Amino acid sequence: MTRSNARRAGRVREKAEIRQLPWRRVGNPFPPVEVLRPEQVDAIHDASMRILEEMGIEVMSGEARSLLRSKGAKVDEATTVVTFDRALIADLIRTAPSSVTLTPRNPDHAVTMGGDAIVFGLVAGPPNVHDRVNGRRNGNRTDYRRLLSLAQSFNIIHMVGNQPIAPVELAAETRHLDCYHDNVVYTDRAFHCTSVGRDRAMDGIDIMALSRGITREQMRESPGVTTIISVNSPRRLDEPLAEGLMTMSEWGQCVCVTPFTLMGAMTPVTLAAALAQQNAEALAGIALTQAVRPGSPVIYGAFTSNVDMRSGAPTFGTPENAKATLAAGQLARRYRLPYRSSNACTSNAADAQAVYESQMSIWASVMGHSNLLYHGAGWLEGGLTASFEKIVMDAEMLQQIAEMLTPIATDEASMGLEAIRDVAPGGHFFGSPHTMERYEQAFYTPFLSDWRNYGTWAEAGAVEAEARATQVWQALLDVYEPPAMPQDRLEALEAFVARRKEELTKGAG
Amino acid sequence: MTRSNARRAGRVREKAEIRQLPWRRVGNPFPPVEVLRPEQVDAIHDASMRILEEMGIEVMSGEARSLLRSKGAKVDEATTVVTFDRALIADLIRTAPSSVTLTPRNPDHAVTMGGDAIVFGLVAGPPNVHDRVNGRRNGNRTDYRRLLSLAQSFNIIHMVGNQPIAPVELAAETRHLDCYHDNVVYTDRAFHCTSVGRDRAMDGIDIMALSRGITREQMRESPGVTTIISVNSPRRLDEPLAEGLMTMSEWGQCVCVTPFTLMGAMTPVTLAAALAQQNAEALAGIALTQAVRPGSPVIYGAFTSNVDMRSGAPTFGTPENAKATLAAGQLARRYRLPYRSSNACTSNAADAQAVYESQMSIWASVMGHSNLLYHGAGWLEGGLTASFEKIVMDAEMLQQIAEMLTPIATDEASMGLEAIRDVAPGGHFFGSPHTMERYEQAFYTPFLSDWRNYGTWAEAGAVEAEARATQVWQALLDVYEPPAMPQDRLEALEAFVARRKEELTKGAG
Repeated sequence: MTRSNARRAGRVREKAEIRQLPWRRVGNPFPPVEVLRPEQVDAIHDASMRILEEMGIEVMSGEARSLLRSKGAKVDEATTVVTFDRALIADLIRTAPSSVTLTPRNPDHAVTMGGDAIVFGLVAGPPNVHDRVNGRRNGNRTDYRRLLSLAQSFNIIHMVGNQPIAPVELAAETRHLDCYHDNVVYTDRAFHCTSVGRDRAMDGIDIMALSRGITREQMRESPGVTTIISVNSPRRLDEPLAEGLMTMSEWGQCVCVTPFTLMGAMTPVTLAAALAQQNAEALAGIALTQAVRPGSPVIYGAFTSNVDMRSGAPTFGTPENAKATLAAGQLARRYRLPYRSSNACTSNAADAQAVYESQMSIWASVMGHSNLLYHGAGWLEGGLTASFEKIVMDAEMLQQIAEMLTPIATDEASMGLEAIRDVAPGGHFFGSPHTMERYEQAFYTPFLSDWRNYGTWAEAGAVEAEARATQVWQALLDVYEPPAMPQDRLEALEAFVARRKEELTKGAG
Repeated sequence: MTRSNARRAGRVREKAEIRQLPWRRVGNPFPPVEVLRPEQVDAIHDASMRILEEMGIEVMSGEARSLLRSKGAKVDEATTVVTFDRALIADLIRTAPSSVTLTPRNPDHAVTMGGDAIVFGLVAGPPNVHDRVNGRRNGNRTDYRRLLSLAQSFNIIHMVGNQPIAPVELAAETRHLDCYHDNVVYTDRAFHCTSVGRDRAMDGIDIMALSRGITREQMRESPGVTTIISVNSPRRLDEPLAEGLMTMSEWGQCVCVTPFTLMGAMTPVTLAAALAQQNAEALAGIALTQAVRPGSPVIYGAFTSNVDMRSGAPTFGTPENAKATLAAGQLARRYRLPYRSSNACTSNAADAQAVYESQMSIWASVMGHSNLLYHGAGWLEGGLTASFEKIVMDAEMLQQIAEMLTPIATDEASMGLEAIRDVAPGGHFFGSPHTMERYEQAFYTPFLSDWRNYGTWAEAGAVEAEARATQVWQALLDVYEPPAMPQDRLEALEAFVARRKEELTKGAG
C-alpha cells in the first residue's frame, strides 16, 4: 500500500467509522466437505465422459471446431457437434495449471485462486440496480461507478466483475470500453472481460495492460484479467463466446468455464444428471483453452441450481444449490483445477431471505473449497439486480467467514492456564492482565451488526440491519476517492478508449 | 401418526398453506469439519486436565462433594473445591453412553442424540417475548403456550425447552409445574426440566411419566426429559444445580452439562483457554452424572462465545463462536459423548443480522457435528427474547439444512443420460418425461421464501421476509390444535399439579 493510499484508508475508517479487516489473502484451513462418496464422483465423471463421447457439444465457432479436430476430436460439420474421447479430454486438461494468479494495476491486490485460497468478487451482470433510498432502476453508468467505488472501499471484495450492472444508456457497441475504463479508474482490482467475440476480450486485456503500464506481451506472462465463459446448456458453446475464450487463452489470460445448469430447465431435474452434464460442458471448454495454449490459466466453474417447478424461474441459495456446490468442488479437485462458485440468492429484497439464501451459498462454497466466490457481494433477485445494501451485508458476512477461517492458537500463552488459576471460582476475567494485554485485538468487530443492548438500540431508533446497511454504503461513498493512477497511464488509457471507440463506430472493429 | 393427527396435519397444511417437511430423523452424512489439529485437541485436553488436577471445581453441594470423594476425588471442605486426577475423570466418564434417546408421550416423536443424528430444539430461557404485531413484552403464560403451539406446529422443531419464555406472572415457587403441564399438553415433544434443586427436576420427571402413562421406574429405563446444567464459569457448580443433576441422573434422565464460557468474561480472552476451561468444567459435571449412576445419559454441552469488549455484553453467532463450536465438537467426540451446541445470535431484531448470525451458529453446529442444536428456533437478542418471527425464520433455515443433508442419488435413472441424449443442444428439459416423472418431488419447497418475480412480488405489496414470517406464525396459530391426550392421563396430570402446588405452597416441598 502506498503512503497516500494508507492515509486515505485511515481517513475512510475514521470518517465513515467503518472498521474493517485489512486486505489479506484468505486461506481455507479445513479439509473440503464431501457430499459424494468417491465411487459417486467416479460415476459422475464416467457419465460426463459418456456425454462427451456419445453426445458431444455443439461448438458454433468454425475456428474452434478446426482447432479441436486438429487435436483429435471428432467433428460433425453438419450438426457442428464435437465429440471427445475421454483419453483426449484427459490429455488436453492435463496441462491446465492448478492455481491462477491475476495481477491488477495495484500489485498488492493480486489475487491467487487455487489450493486453499479463496477470493471474493463483486456481483456481475445484473440489468438492474437497487438501493433503499432510490429504489429499483435500470443499470446506468453513474451507478456502475458507485458500485465499483463501493467494491474498492471494501478490503474483503478482492475482484470486480466486468459489469456489476449493465449501463444500458451507453451505446452497446462501445459500452465495454467505458466499463473497462471505469474498472481500472475506480478500482485497482483484477476484473473480468466480457468475452463476447475477440474484440471485447482483447480490449479488456489491452486496458488492463495500459493501467499496469505494461504491454500485451508482458500481460501474457502475468495475467491480470479473467472471463467467464457461460456454456449455453445443454451442450452448446456459441460462436462469440468460443472466440472470446480463444482470445483470452491465446493471450494467457484466465478463463473460467461455467455451464449455467439449472436443474429442470437446462439439465434433467436430478442432481446427478446436472452434475454430469455440467462436468462434460465445463471440461469441453477447459479442453479448448488448453488446445489454444497449453498451460493457459483456467478455472472450473459451477453454477448448478434448480428452478421453481411451479414457474420455471431460477432459484439460488437452495439446499440443492448448496449440495451441487459441494459436489462440484469434488469434481474440480478430481482434475486439479481451481474452482469457482457463486454467492447467489433468489430474494427480491435485501432482507432475511436474501441473507439465509446467501449464507447457504457462502457456507457451501467455503466448505466445498471454492477458490473464487463469484458474485460474492451484491447479488439480488436471482441475479437481475445489484443491490447497494446487499453489498454491505455480503461484505460483513464475508469478513466473518474470513475471520472464522483463521486458525486457533494453542501456544502456552493462549492456553492461559495461569490466568485461569488467578481467577477464583465464580469470578471474572475482565480485569485480568491476560485479558488486558489482548482484548483490543482478541475478537472480530463487525461494522454492520449492532451489539448494543435492546434499550440503547431502541432509544436510538431501533434501526434494523437493512437500514444500517444503507448508512454504511452512504458513509463509504461519501469519503471514497479513486485510487491514484500515474498521469501517463491515465492519458494512454483515455487515448486508447477514444481510438477504439472511433474504430468501432466506423465498423473497423 | 394417528389418523386424527394426520387429518389435523393435512388441515394445517391446507388452511395455513404451510408446506413443510414431514417429521423425520435428521442425519448428518458429512465427516465433521475440524478446526483443531489432533495435537491441538491433545493440548487442550491436557490443559483441561491440569485445571481439574491443579485448580479444581468449586462444588457447592455437600452431597455431591461426598459422592465425588467416595469415588476418589480430593475435596477441600474449607474452600469446597474438588480436584480430580485425570485417571479418575477418564474412569468416570468411560461409562457415559455415546447416544441418548428421549421418548415423549408421542413415541413417534422420540429423539436420538449421538452419532450422525442432529436434533433441533426450541429456544429456552428468555425473560422477554417479541413479535412484530405486539412488540416486546415480559414473558407470560399466554405467550408461553403460543410459543409451544408454534413449536408443535413445525415438524423441524423436535424438542422443546422447559421455558421458551419465563411466565413471570406465575408464582415463582410453583411456576415450573405450570410450565411442565403446558409442555405436555400443548406439545407431544421431549422437554427440558429445570434442575434447580431436586424437587423441580423430580416434578418434571413425574409429569413426563404421567403424560406417557408410565411410572417413574419405567422412565428410568426409557428417559423422556433432559436438563441443562449450566456450570457457573469459572469453575463453580452451585448447590441447586448439583442437586438437580444428581436427581436427573439417579432417575436415568438426560443431563446436558454446559459451561457458560464467554471469552473475556467467564474465561480468558483466548479461544484455547476458553476451550480448556469449558472442557474441564463439562467433564467435571459429566463425571458427577456417572458417579451418581454409571451409564446414565449425558451430553457434552458447549456455549463458548465472546463478549463485546467495548461493553462486556455477550455476543453470539460471531466468528469466534463458530470456531469454538467446531472445536468443541472435536472435544466431545474425543470422549465419545453426544454433543450440544446452540443457534444463537446477538441481534435485537429478527432481521438480516439475526439471520447471518444464526446461520453462522447453525452451519458451524452442523459442520461440527452437533447432536443437539439447542435454542434451534426463536432465539433473539443474546437470549433475552423469544421471537415469534425468528421461530419461523429458524424453522425455514433448519428445514433447508435438513434437506441439504440428504444424500445425492447417483443410480442410473438419476444420472439421466438418456434424458440428456433426448434434448438437443440449446434445448430445454421442462417437458422431458424424465422431468415430468419427478418434478413435483425433485426440489425442496420453502414456506417463507418468496420466489415470485420482482414485478409480481412488488405488485403484491413487496412484502419482505420479516413480515411474511408474521403471516406464517399467525396462520399456524390460527389452525393449531393441541395434540390429543387420553382423558385419564390428562386427569392424572391435573391432579398431580394440584397436589404438588398445595404441597409447595404449604412448604411441604
